Amino acid sequence: MIVVMKPDSRDTDIKNICSILESLGLGVHISKGTERTIIGVIGDKRLLKDIPIDLMPGVEKLVPIVEPYKLASKSFHPEPSIIDINGVKIGSREIVLMAGPCAVESHEQVMEAALAVKRSGAKFLRGGAFKPRTSPYSFQGLEEEGLKILKEARDAAGLLIISEVTSEKSLEIAEKYVDMVQVGARNAQNFQLLREIGRSKKPVLYKRGPSTTIEEWLNAAEYIMSEGNYNVVLCERGIRTFENATRNTLDISAVPVIKSLSHLPIIVDPSHATGKSQYVQPLSKAAIAAGADGLIIEVHPNPMCALSDASQQITPADFDILCRDISKIAPIVGREFIYGGKLN
Amino acid sequence: MIVVMKPDSRDTDIKNICSILESLGLGVHISKGTERTIIGVIGDKRLLKDIPIDLMPGVEKLVPIVEPYKLASKSFHPEPSIIDINGVKIGSREIVLMAGPCAVESHEQVMEAALAVKRSGAKFLRGGAFKPRTSPYSFQGLEEEGLKILKEARDAAGLLIISEVTSEKSLEIAEKYVDMVQVGARNAQNFQLLREIGRSKKPVLYKRGPSTTIEEWLNAAEYIMSEGNYNVVLCERGIRTFENATRNTLDISAVPVIKSLSHLPIIVDPSHATGKSQYVQPLSKAAIAAGADGLIIEVHPNPMCALSDASQQITPADFDILCRDISKIAPIVGREFIYGGKLN
Amino acid sequence: MIVVMKPDSRDTDIKNICSILESLGLGVHISKGTERTIIGVIGDKRLLKDIPIDLMPGVEKLVPIVEPYKLASKSFHPEPSIIDINGVKIGSREIVLMAGPCAVESHEQVMEAALAVKRSGAKFLRGGAFKPRTSPYSFQGLEEEGLKILKEARDAAGLLIISEVTSEKSLEIAEKYVDMVQVGARNAQNFQLLREIGRSKKPVLYKRGPSTTIEEWLNAAEYIMSEGNYNVVLCERGIRTFENATRNTLDISAVPVIKSLSHLPIIVDPSHATGKSQYVQPLSKAAIAAGADGLIIEVHPNPMCALSDASQQITPADFDILCRDISKIAPIVGREFIYGGKLN
Amino acid sequence: MIVVMKPDSRDTDIKNICSILESLGLGVHISKGTERTIIGVIGDKRLLKDIPIDLMPGVEKLVPIVEPYKLASKSFHPEPSIIDINGVKIGSREIVLMAGPCAVESHEQVMEAALAVKRSGAKFLRGGAFKPRTSPYSFQGLEEEGLKILKEARDAAGLLIISEVTSEKSLEIAEKYVDMVQVGARNAQNFQLLREIGRSKKPVLYKRGPSTTIEEWLNAAEYIMSEGNYNVVLCERGIRTFENATRNTLDISAVPVIKSLSHLPIIVDPSHATGKSQYVQPLSKAAIAAGADGLIIEVHPNPMCALSDASQQITPADFDILCRDISKIAPIVGREFIYGGKLN
Repeated sequence: MIVVMKPDSRDTDIKNICSILESLGLGVHISKGTERTIIGVIGDKRLLKDIPIDLMPGVEKLVPIVEPYKLASKSFHPEPSIIDINGVKIGSREIVLMAGPCAVESHEQVMEAALAVKRSGAKFLRGGAFKPRTSPYSFQGLEEEGLKILKEARDAAGLLIISEVTSEKSLEIAEKYVDMVQVGARNAQNFQLLREIGRSKKPVLYKRGPSTTIEEWLNAAEYIMSEGNYNVVLCERGIRTFENATRNTLDISAVPVIKSLSHLPIIVDPSHATGKSQYVQPLSKAAIAAGADGLIIEVHPNPMCALSDASQQITPADFDILCRDISKIAPIVGREFIYGGKLN
Repeated sequence: MIVVMKPDSRDTDIKNICSILESLGLGVHISKGTERTIIGVIGDKRLLKDIPIDLMPGVEKLVPIVEPYKLASKSFHPEPSIIDINGVKIGSREIVLMAGPCAVESHEQVMEAALAVKRSGAKFLRGGAFKPRTSPYSFQGLEEEGLKILKEARDAAGLLIISEVTSEKSLEIAEKYVDMVQVGARNAQNFQLLREIGRSKKPVLYKRGPSTTIEEWLNAAEYIMSEGNYNVVLCERGIRTFENATRNTLDISAVPVIKSLSHLPIIVDPSHATGKSQYVQPLSKAAIAAGADGLIIEVHPNPMCALSDASQQITPADFDILCRDISKIAPIVGREFIYGGKLN
Repeated sequence: MIVVMKPDSRDTDIKNICSILESLGLGVHISKGTERTIIGVIGDKRLLKDIPIDLMPGVEKLVPIVEPYKLASKSFHPEPSIIDINGVKIGSREIVLMAGPCAVESHEQVMEAALAVKRSGAKFLRGGAFKPRTSPYSFQGLEEEGLKILKEARDAAGLLIISEVTSEKSLEIAEKYVDMVQVGARNAQNFQLLREIGRSKKPVLYKRGPSTTIEEWLNAAEYIMSEGNYNVVLCERGIRTFENATRNTLDISAVPVIKSLSHLPIIVDPSHATGKSQYVQPLSKAAIAAGADGLIIEVHPNPMCALSDASQQITPADFDILCRDISKIAPIVGREFIYGGKLN
Repeated sequence: MIVVMKPDSRDTDIKNICSILESLGLGVHISKGTERTIIGVIGDKRLLKDIPIDLMPGVEKLVPIVEPYKLASKSFHPEPSIIDINGVKIGSREIVLMAGPCAVESHEQVMEAALAVKRSGAKFLRGGAFKPRTSPYSFQGLEEEGLKILKEARDAAGLLIISEVTSEKSLEIAEKYVDMVQVGARNAQNFQLLREIGRSKKPVLYKRGPSTTIEEWLNAAEYIMSEGNYNVVLCERGIRTFENATRNTLDISAVPVIKSLSHLPIIVDPSHATGKSQYVQPLSKAAIAAGADGLIIEVHPNPMCALSDASQQITPADFDILCRDISKIAPIVGREFIYGGKLN
């Protein structure tokens, strides 16, 4: 960290700050420029977290030098992490697809979706049991009943399952059924929930919040990781911008940026990013071409009859075509995806 | 709602949609323009919430005509609501100020802040007991112990108290101590929590999320109100934009916009909006001049020693000057604020 | 267009609006809903452009039904346009690459870049002669001298050339040398310049502004097209958002969105979108996978010595690898790119 | 400026950078931290503008310490500037109001507006002669004829006049008639035009661009000032955000932020910020309460008949009420505004 002094700061101001820093066991390094004096702070900056250096007399601002997150940083762990979830390795050479309906509606719907996405090559079945909906008058999910349906489809189709948790209570329930929990964009800064997931050790798909910067996202991942849960996969799902031709703006650059800053795998959710099924295929291919480790896609046997987010769910037939294309793009970017799963 | 048909839609598409709408008990009204045919839908659009009309053959898009929120809408309740919280009336002619430290740190700190803000004219003492912090390594709040300290200061200074809740658990605890709960920006779309607050009937200060549009904000307030809790006060606290000279961008226009769309009172939080104490005074005066019903401001007896958000807390002395100025601006905009409280 | 009346509007208000509309030769269609009465307006809405219907007594708001742009719309021209520029067809099956240095610096630099990008398969050489720089103290471009250098490289390498124009004066000069002019993001709403380009009939690469919605972008293209110049190619180059890990946020969704709304070709500029050379390759591949008709990429023989935007220019060697990858991705998305050009 | 080295940089990388810096006449100051080595650069950083230090081996990033703008900075000129325009002093104790129609439409319209705003206390008459409109099919302004009408109203009412210029040509014409030129948001980064205005020495109202950060805005003001024209008044007019209840989001914080960074005066344009006349009064009062030096407001004798932007123009009667309120708010924030002008 650098402390930048005001042009009119006095020597006593500088001395005062240095003695505070030194009393905390930090080193200091003073550099006088033509316009400003700066103080380099040497040592663990977390010692300073509750000392408002920026309010001290003569201080203009603080400039961080090292990124504030540690456990998610490449500096801490230069090799990419591979998250092994019951044998499926996210972040490995293999592209991992997660697919399934927005919401679990019925046994038949889920089973049909599961068999279809498995046939095309998906490794995970997704489906919402606890649904955070913008209107209180919309379908809110089947809750534990929905998880049981997912579990049955899991065993029948030979897929792993992932489902969103929205509170500590739903986490406690979901843990018993799913292979991986998902934290949705609306809970991206629900630190209480992140901490509980950290304690649970369950693999987690952690979505970016709609107004979260990449740095804040990695900082918040620290809530999960600092509790000992390193099985974190990031998911870019679009950010809020002024453009409203799509529900959100897919920040495709987040893929290579995360790869340069963090060792955690990153997948992309084109369904929530755009909110429109017609854009899911081009953006899925774009995400793989940009280096994503996988995709999570909403697939419904009959989107017309979906009880939630009908507009963004694609058909199994379209998903199948997409899988075939992804199996061709993957090797061009040094990856692999096996099109056409086998039913067990 | 209007269903806009594609230029190349067929008569059978139009008939098909009309018969679905009519089968649900909705009226239809067809209008053929020079470029598009549109179908006006008459009746309660909530009947349609789970039918994806936009995916039907020949449909280009749906255009909503009536705002989706009801209970928060001025159409539902044309007169401004006055929320009476143990005798303090938010939304009345009187400007209501809430002030106090970002976090409850100690009995002495809170008591000193309480007496000071009371003397200047505040009606509410604020103070965080459950702190959602962006870094897991920062001070996380005193929790129930903090609420007890607030309660003691409440009784000593003759102020009402408000504190943030971040989960169902913290709500259960806070309800026993506070006069009003606060939902922070990070939980603005934590629908589970909003629903619980709706059930609790406790008056609530409901902050806007950093990427929430005004329409979404009013929609989400519906989660609280539809459970029977109408004691909702809105709080504008800045939105996320590309500008980073301030922590967020205070959307001052939200004040008159909310006044034109909703009957709920709205106050402004200049401390979180800017993140910098030096901007709190000008923005507080601006908010009152724009028609806000009150302010919530972070005041710390000694900002230099604050354990959280030191940079945005102002001193009791600055708060006092601000109160005096507000007492002068209020009458110009048809309001009243009595500068200088009395200790009981 | 739909006129939505207020809940408390009177019959005379409705009659008044209808008679104004009818006096202009427009048809009206009244539909009374349960909460609002709406008036459908039938005919050419441009007749209304200077009549503030939204200010008339009883009117709540206007809702547009048909997109405001005509010439750029797919409704006007359902087949994709192919822009033929001296034999290079943008929007055809072939992916077209434009590459070259940010700024024209010297004859040697341009010639080296031209031969290199030609060898890899580019069809256009790009290079800035008139540079809009954020600081007045930075290199501002060689102006006409730069265009002459580009022209020499054009003839030597057998490439077409494209260069930015920033004012009517620079347009007059550039027209004499280049095959295609470029309007940069900073001039995206310089309507005077757009109009002049419309009159010039020169093929134009029209970049999106950093805060321009897709609808506004297509509207502004109308300035060029309404003067008779239909040789417009759109270019997505990133929008301004709160994320600053990249210079702008590449709105990759703009590619399929434009394809669904307009017949105009769209290419992507990954160099300006990210501002960092290390992200150019993944985003270029993503753009092609998403369906873009081409790319414009900054390539400099020696980025370390570049006089402007050094950080975002890639080397000829990296460009060559990218071209090879694009030649493989293209057929998967139904396109073609021939890796390896021939010098003439 | 600080050069931050990568964790794995070598001593030769550091030496290499230091010798380049020293060869340019800059001083260096090396500081080894626990995680990174940083190099402080001492001297005029403009020497480095065309050397891409950030691309050199071992460099992670550059961190600026001093703001890049000089002439607009408070460091350069600590006292607030007062811009004297033919006797009207913007930035002095007196609040200065500019008012008038969006577009000049006729002699009668302008004269009526001029006399009305003068009576209420405005010092400047505004009116657009060159109109940048989003649609090419809208009214584009009376051009020089419009300026002549403004000039007549100027002399009749005893007001100064201000009008927008959109190109070098319109600047040449406008200079002959107006007391102050205005650069609109769409030309905020039209550096060619800014430079010409710099050369013209005409006082200029320089509006912020819709996606321009405050730092970029001050940087761009440098284009005007570095040509010798110091008569620059800034104007906040709203930025582009995801919120669309208003046309733009008025960044009210920009007022105190500019006051803390720059010596230039700043006024606010509530008409363009919101696009809706009903919000103009509350936001005008807010701007003055926040410390703005003045306002520019669209006032039309008959908004219903306006040829452009009818929705955002207020009536002379509403403007008069606003002026009275401002005369009361001004003294509370240490300013003065004399309600009720005198016709000469």
